[in-house]
Amino acid sequence: MPQDKTYDMVVYNGTVLTVNRTFDVLEKGLVLIADGRLERMEEKASKQALPKARQVIDAQGGIIMPGLVNTHTHAPMSLFRGLADDLPLMTWLNDYIFKVEGRWLNPETVHTATLLSCAEMLLSGTTTFCDGYFFEDSVAEAVKESGMRAILGQGIVDFPAPGVPEPGKNVAEALRFIQEWQGKTSLIEAGLFCHSPYTCSEETLRQARRVADDTGSLFQIHVAETQDEVRAVEAKHGLSPLQYLDKLGVLKPRTLLVHAIWVHEADMACMARSDVGISVTTESEMKLASGVPPVPAFLKKGLSVGIGTDGCASNNNLDMLQEMDFLSKLHKVKHLDPTVLPAQEVLYLATRGGAEAIGLGGQTGSLEVGKRADLIIIQTHRPHLTPLYDPASHLVYAASGSDVQDVIIDGQLVVRDRTVLTIKVEEVMTAVEALAREIAS
Amino acid sequence: MPQDKTYDMVVYNGTVLTVNRTFDVLEKGLVLIADGRLERMEEKASKQALPKARQVIDAQGGIIMPGLVNTHTHAPMSLFRGLADDLPLMTWLNDYIFKVEGRWLNPETVHTATLLSCAEMLLSGTTTFCDGYFFEDSVAEAVKESGMRAILGQGIVDFPAPGVPEPGKNVAEALRFIQEWQGKTSLIEAGLFCHSPYTCSEETLRQARRVADDTGSLFQIHVAETQDEVRAVEAKHGLSPLQYLDKLGVLKPRTLLVHAIWVHEADMACMARSDVGISVTTESEMKLASGVPPVPAFLKKGLSVGIGTDGCASNNNLDMLQEMDFLSKLHKVKHLDPTVLPAQEVLYLATRGGAEAIGLGGQTGSLEVGKRADLIIIQTHRPHLTPLYDPASHLVYAASGSDVQDVIIDGQLVVRDRTVLTIKVEEVMTAVEALAREIAS
Repeated sequence: MPQDKTYDMVVYNGTVLTVNRTFDVLEKGLVLIADGRLERMEEKASKQALPKARQVIDAQGGIIMPGLVNTHTHAPMSLFRGLADDLPLMTWLNDYIFKVEGRWLNPETVHTATLLSCAEMLLSGTTTFCDGYFFEDSVAEAVKESGMRAILGQGIVDFPAPGVPEPGKNVAEALRFIQEWQGKTSLIEAGLFCHSPYTCSEETLRQARRVADDTGSLFQIHVAETQDEVRAVEAKHGLSPLQYLDKLGVLKPRTLLVHAIWVHEADMACMARSDVGISVTTESEMKLASGVPPVPAFLKKGLSVGIGTDGCASNNNLDMLQEMDFLSKLHKVKHLDPTVLPAQEVLYLATRGGAEAIGLGGQTGSLEVGKRADLIIIQTHRPHLTPLYDPASHLVYAASGSDVQDVIIDGQLVVRDRTVLTIKVEEVMTAVEALAREIAS
Repeated sequence: MPQDKTYDMVVYNGTVLTVNRTFDVLEKGLVLIADGRLERMEEKASKQALPKARQVIDAQGGIIMPGLVNTHTHAPMSLFRGLADDLPLMTWLNDYIFKVEGRWLNPETVHTATLLSCAEMLLSGTTTFCDGYFFEDSVAEAVKESGMRAILGQGIVDFPAPGVPEPGKNVAEALRFIQEWQGKTSLIEAGLFCHSPYTCSEETLRQARRVADDTGSLFQIHVAETQDEVRAVEAKHGLSPLQYLDKLGVLKPRTLLVHAIWVHEADMACMARSDVGISVTTESEMKLASGVPPVPAFLKKGLSVGIGTDGCASNNNLDMLQEMDFLSKLHKVKHLDPTVLPAQEVLYLATRGGAEAIGLGGQTGSLEVGKRADLIIIQTHRPHLTPLYDPASHLVYAASGSDVQDVIIDGQLVVRDRTVLTIKVEEVMTAVEALAREIAS
């Protein structure tokens, strides 16, 4: 190591989980950051002096790991967290969610609620997320302030939607959003989010696909979420939702399929052939009783899978550490096989796997020299994480978001000792609480 | 309220969830405690002065609720948290757990590891737990120090066990433990824990039942946990595990059946007739891939059900708030019905339901005048619990153990602002970490 070099940041005194191809672990690791990227990583010899750096972060013996990648959110829905639960899906959507969305969403409320979600995500270790919603410009403004990395998709649906009263202009509005935000900041990538094959027409889906292709952006869509959806699409098009999307030419690289629960072998063959990404949102899919996607089969077939929380009206939090726990345990009991989805594999899905599924694998998702410096520090000296035999086991089965101590994104410290440095969290909570009082009354 | 009365403690400035028969909620509630019991509860008028009290606890706008009741633990197993995961059950037990138990358990390590578990349980809001393990005297000593309420069962198994090298003396040892601890402190009730119908002989089960009856103590047993167990018991006795226990006269009031996963209608009829309690340990049952017990059917039949975490070698924490989340969501997706196990019902199971299942319903499990003062305060002014429309929803779907701020047991403050007042947590963690280094090497 050149002795005279001064780094922007050094992180030391922790166990580094790289989540690289060989899952290398650096005991007493040293992570050196310059220009927002990981410049060097090594084990620190006991008498070795720390290299010079403008900022020195002591991990206090904790775990230093890649920031978590949440591949599916509707960030502004934190406004409706716990407003309605334990209801049939259509009652929940039609009698509660769509009504409050129509009544309460505007650029200002979306901005405020997104800041709240960003604070929650940061405090639970998420550094990158992939969002789909309406008033996505306001989401982007909030994300920019938060310092998070994100892919943001403007929502497309064939009925009047928040901010898009004329459905005929939905794809044009998404294009405008993409053009507005593409390249504006290095941390935000703009894209689009078609709601589903049953709420978007053939023409809408084709147009949206064209926009995504022309702009090189991510095409997100909910698909095969419920048995009702499968029946409806089959009745109308004579094809499964996946095969219908395939026929329309929607399935290709830079597509993120969200849920993909009710799929069969032929569907999975389509997915594998077209090199799409998949986001599974276990807690939300359990809570809404949608079903259980065949995640072990996806992985066996080499499909690219990431983990998402979904919006926190159906979860009801954005805690990716808990999400890992649910994913692993649900599939173990479903298959009556405790070896399914072991801790290390689940940790991969929540980090590098997720980054790859949304097309950011080159930038983030693991701690490897050359990647952007997105990392988090987990404090393990706590009763529920004591003793520590295996860091991956603790992360998946014992930790929760509140064990995250520090968060660094693109080389910038955004959470220090559980304080978010980029968002006025007290003010945001107060504003959301005031809004919620109006919504409840 | 008599103006001159001085209470031992007053808790104010929070929303009180009583979890009584009618699930009453007191906004801006006032909880008055004297002699370790709940003496009075009411809503505080805005200008009303606080009554006089030796100790005043400000809930800071949070939720004041009954302490959580963990109906199944093996407290000392925190020593083996994360030592071995993702393995077939028999490999996990025979190649790891039984080996390290045999090698590392002694009165001192059991005492230390139990203190660690008590600290973890207190910090996540559990005030009462029901344990079954070996060296249970050491468990009892630790629990006494911690200030927790517990039912502790000395383990009984028909092979050499930690502290009981001669299986022939297993029931006598349990009787000795019960006689030693029965009535020693008001917070600890001594009982026994037969490991299972396949590791205890007919004669052992009958003798243990007699001891439990003679001493009026709780009889705990794992039963119908795996399909293999059912097959083995059926092959040997020609009866299902439940019907076999029924034939032996084991099933009667003051029995806690743990797991009860692989049961059919006739088994449930047995259980209902004999007025037993049931402990479901969702996360552990998922992680070990044991199966999913028919909890909605249990409740429909009026069976007495509580929630447990199991030992944290198979969970891997003791967080009852997360356990509620898993229970509710697992049964929703299993039945493809989001209305199954709604938040309020799950909250009941984790508190009053659990207390009733282990026979402590008269003392704890709800905030009702006359019961012992076992209560916790949840801090809700946090991003992941904002906004708050429905406290029960947040407790089940959004909160985790780290949201517990204060814990009061039997009228004594044992956790204040997330600091355990009864246990030297740093010393205990250091001791367990040192032990774990030896175990790992």
